[in-house]
Amino acid sequence: MNLILVEHSERTADGTAVLRGERARHVADVLRAGPGDRIRVGLVDGPAGEAVVVQASADAVELRDLPAGDPPPRARIDLLLALPRPKVLKRLWAQLAALGVDRILLTNAARVERNYFDTHVLDEAFHRPLLLEGLQQARDTRLPRVSLHRRFRPFIEDELDGLTDAAKRLVADPSATVNVHTALTAAVPERVLLAVGPEGGWVPFELDLLRARGFTAVGLGPRTLRTDTACVALLALVTDALYG
Amino acid sequence: MNLILVEHSERTADGTAVLRGERARHVADVLRAGPGDRIRVGLVDGPAGEAVVVQASADAVELRDLPAGDPPPRARIDLLLALPRPKVLKRLWAQLAALGVDRILLTNAARVERNYFDTHVLDEAFHRPLLLEGLQQARDTRLPRVSLHRRFRPFIEDELDGLTDAAKRLVADPSATVNVHTALTAAVPERVLLAVGPEGGWVPFELDLLRARGFTAVGLGPRTLRTDTACVALLALVTDALYG
Repeated sequence: MNLILVEHSERTADGTAVLRGERARHVADVLRAGPGDRIRVGLVDGPAGEAVVVQASADAVELRDLPAGDPPPRARIDLLLALPRPKVLKRLWAQLAALGVDRILLTNAARVERNYFDTHVLDEAFHRPLLLEGLQQARDTRLPRVSLHRRFRPFIEDELDGLTDAAKRLVADPSATVNVHTALTAAVPERVLLAVGPEGGWVPFELDLLRARGFTAVGLGPRTLRTDTACVALLALVTDALYG
Repeated sequence: MNLILVEHSERTADGTAVLRGERARHVADVLRAGPGDRIRVGLVDGPAGEAVVVQASADAVELRDLPAGDPPPRARIDLLLALPRPKVLKRLWAQLAALGVDRILLTNAARVERNYFDTHVLDEAFHRPLLLEGLQQARDTRLPRVSLHRRFRPFIEDELDGLTDAAKRLVADPSATVNVHTALTAAVPERVLLAVGPEGGWVPFELDLLRARGFTAVGLGPRTLRTDTACVALLALVTDALYG
């Protein structure tokens, strides 16, 4: 934890908060912070900064002077991801938050198996703590916004434009000859929407529809990567082009 | 499995092989290959190509006409990695092989905990199957070469030059202002050695020693990433600069 995240519901009117569980253990045992020490704190979707420790034990940590002011800007990447196997998605949540994804748009696709939709890995109660873990790793407070879209075509045709205003849309496709760097550096956009397909790839109809909706196909070289590895690799390349 | 890897010990003198276990199940149940079908096969550290299925069931698959000729070139990235937590290293093995790392040089560092060296995750019997899994994902046959170095300074000073001839050496460092792309694109080297430190970072002595041995510090932006995420992100950026 490089930043301790506090929920708004944990903050009292006078700007204090009491944390328990893992965060308390971290402050007491890893940071070894005591009364009067300042530690890095953020409010979920709120400002980041420092707070003062009033008292700390592994059971409970009391903080005062929580950060105030504006939250940091949202991440500039939205991810459109064909719903991966639950095991892979489980590994991805924290990494997506750490890498700085604003919207996580999960969608059905021809090669997504039906039963992937039944997993508890999709429950907010499951993924929210993992997203917070990723934010605490990366020192961000902006919780990614997650949505699930069960019908690919109406989602792409009717809903997508209302969910993201990304000026540049990319779709990862092994047959593409353009790489992320080339696709983005001519005119660096304010926001990028990156689409990553299922393990077996998009079917031609899906790729055609994405192209018709403004997506540029980008390749990642000749090595076929697992979805989680490919997501991290592609997000690193997009981030580098946006901020590098 | 985008390529089925066959061990040299499994190949008979007349160019056939019988596979069992997971590979047999994959050929029979996922590829649904039968007698006469050609499937993508490689020999570990040997040539990649196709072989002909003689017979296939989920228990055993017999192949003939295994690929012959030269093996593909070795990957062009060596990774010097401060030994991570066993849980993180476990997640990394297959991804490192899939991303195309030639040498995996694991080293001690001031912020590596002693007990990390005691894990079975370092045993060849544990990591070899995971490395093969990564190669089969990425359609490569070249098994990464793994070595473990318990004393940082003598390793860097006396052994490193004998283990890698990378023309360019990079060390990931959050304070660096140069990114991977800038560090590599002026003159694209034949081979890159990338150093990634422990969760808490390299200590100043280690960074100084690496700089004295020709490493250039490169940054990955303001977000602090977990070691496995950082490795994948950095390898993607190096790969893009080398091959992009």
